[in-house]
Amino acid sequence: MKISKYIDHTVLAADADEKKIEKLCQEARDNDFASVCVNTCWVKKCAELLKGTDVNVCTVVGFPLGAMDTEAKAFEAALAVKNGATEVDMVLNVGYIKSGMYAEAEEDIRKVKEACDGKLLKVILETCLLTKEEIVKASELSMAAGADYVKTSTGFSKGGATAEDVALMRKTVGDKLGVKASGGIRDYETAMKMIEAGASRLGCSAGIAIINGASSDAEY
Amino acid sequence: MKISKYIDHTVLAADADEKKIEKLCQEARDNDFASVCVNTCWVKKCAELLKGTDVNVCTVVGFPLGAMDTEAKAFEAALAVKNGATEVDMVLNVGYIKSGMYAEAEEDIRKVKEACDGKLLKVILETCLLTKEEIVKASELSMAAGADYVKTSTGFSKGGATAEDVALMRKTVGDKLGVKASGGIRDYETAMKMIEAGASRLGCSAGIAIINGASSDAEY
Repeated sequence: MKISKYIDHTVLAADADEKKIEKLCQEARDNDFASVCVNTCWVKKCAELLKGTDVNVCTVVGFPLGAMDTEAKAFEAALAVKNGATEVDMVLNVGYIKSGMYAEAEEDIRKVKEACDGKLLKVILETCLLTKEEIVKASELSMAAGADYVKTSTGFSKGGATAEDVALMRKTVGDKLGVKASGGIRDYETAMKMIEAGASRLGCSAGIAIINGASSDAEY
Repeated sequence: MKISKYIDHTVLAADADEKKIEKLCQEARDNDFASVCVNTCWVKKCAELLKGTDVNVCTVVGFPLGAMDTEAKAFEAALAVKNGATEVDMVLNVGYIKSGMYAEAEEDIRKVKEACDGKLLKVILETCLLTKEEIVKASELSMAAGADYVKTSTGFSKGGATAEDVALMRKTVGDKLGVKASGGIRDYETAMKMIEAGASRLGCSAGIAIINGASSDAEY
């Protein structure tokens, strides 16, 4: 697979304006990225701009804290899908995990998956806030709740993806789920390290720099 | 007014657990704070714990990026009010402001205000991302849309409240709206500086330290 098809081309900053979103979509078309990843207020616009291409519209739900009420997360996901999102990256309720409220954490994911109406769901674990045991537990809960991917990070907390965490998540989910590495992936070498550790998708705002760092005929 | 009644006693970290939320509510009762301010997944619990007291349950919507779809923000607010929230702090769509999409930014606030069903709405401008002109514009839009307060910061971006921004917001809204200063207010001196600049409410996680820094019979 071309490295470009690993990449969710991402702009999630609070102050990103319409021009930045338009540029993101243009770059995703030009470089054949897997998706653009944007906040829910920009989903409709991206769906229009990417109509007829095979670039997905990925969005984020309960982002970046994951502490939004389950019903609200499910509503946000359903609305995004209605507006044209084909992939949804939700944030795990980390506070539930820290409280040992595993049933609530799993139900939170299950309700969002139902709201996604068959579209791809990735669960962001925010690994920098979790112990290794909690990363395993959260990966298992995501799998049990019907998620399609586990994902490392929001990019808005204390740390991003590490090869060690990616490998642990891959070991836990086997080949049943995808693993998305995100947060701090800014160059080709780091991207390759994540893929070698088991990542099947990469979330990054530096997608252009990453593919430019690859040899022109590279296949991965 | 006692300084404690200026304070929204706040815990918004992604990894805050149930025990931390219970402690927050106990401290708010013991110290007679204006409210507890929590993420929407904890609203029901706080409403139960604070039943029969005059401590408000404040929550956050579209938090902290403000780039959530308007319909989803309104749903999250309505659900929180249904679950017992009496105050809602929503985040302005900063990207709309940066795009000159003022009608959309105002409509975003208006829809959330309608969803609040008469409960108090504060609009977080995230002042550290705005120019002085944009702070004035966003304050005017909040006023036009029916908000009850403008508020400086989420505490999750590059910077928090400054006395200069609080004064500018107070000058813009006059005595029609409240002004809440939040982000980086960790001691009594800073709290007093914000009140002197025009703040009528303070958002802080250091509420206990702040009231302990005040003389015991202080009234403000």
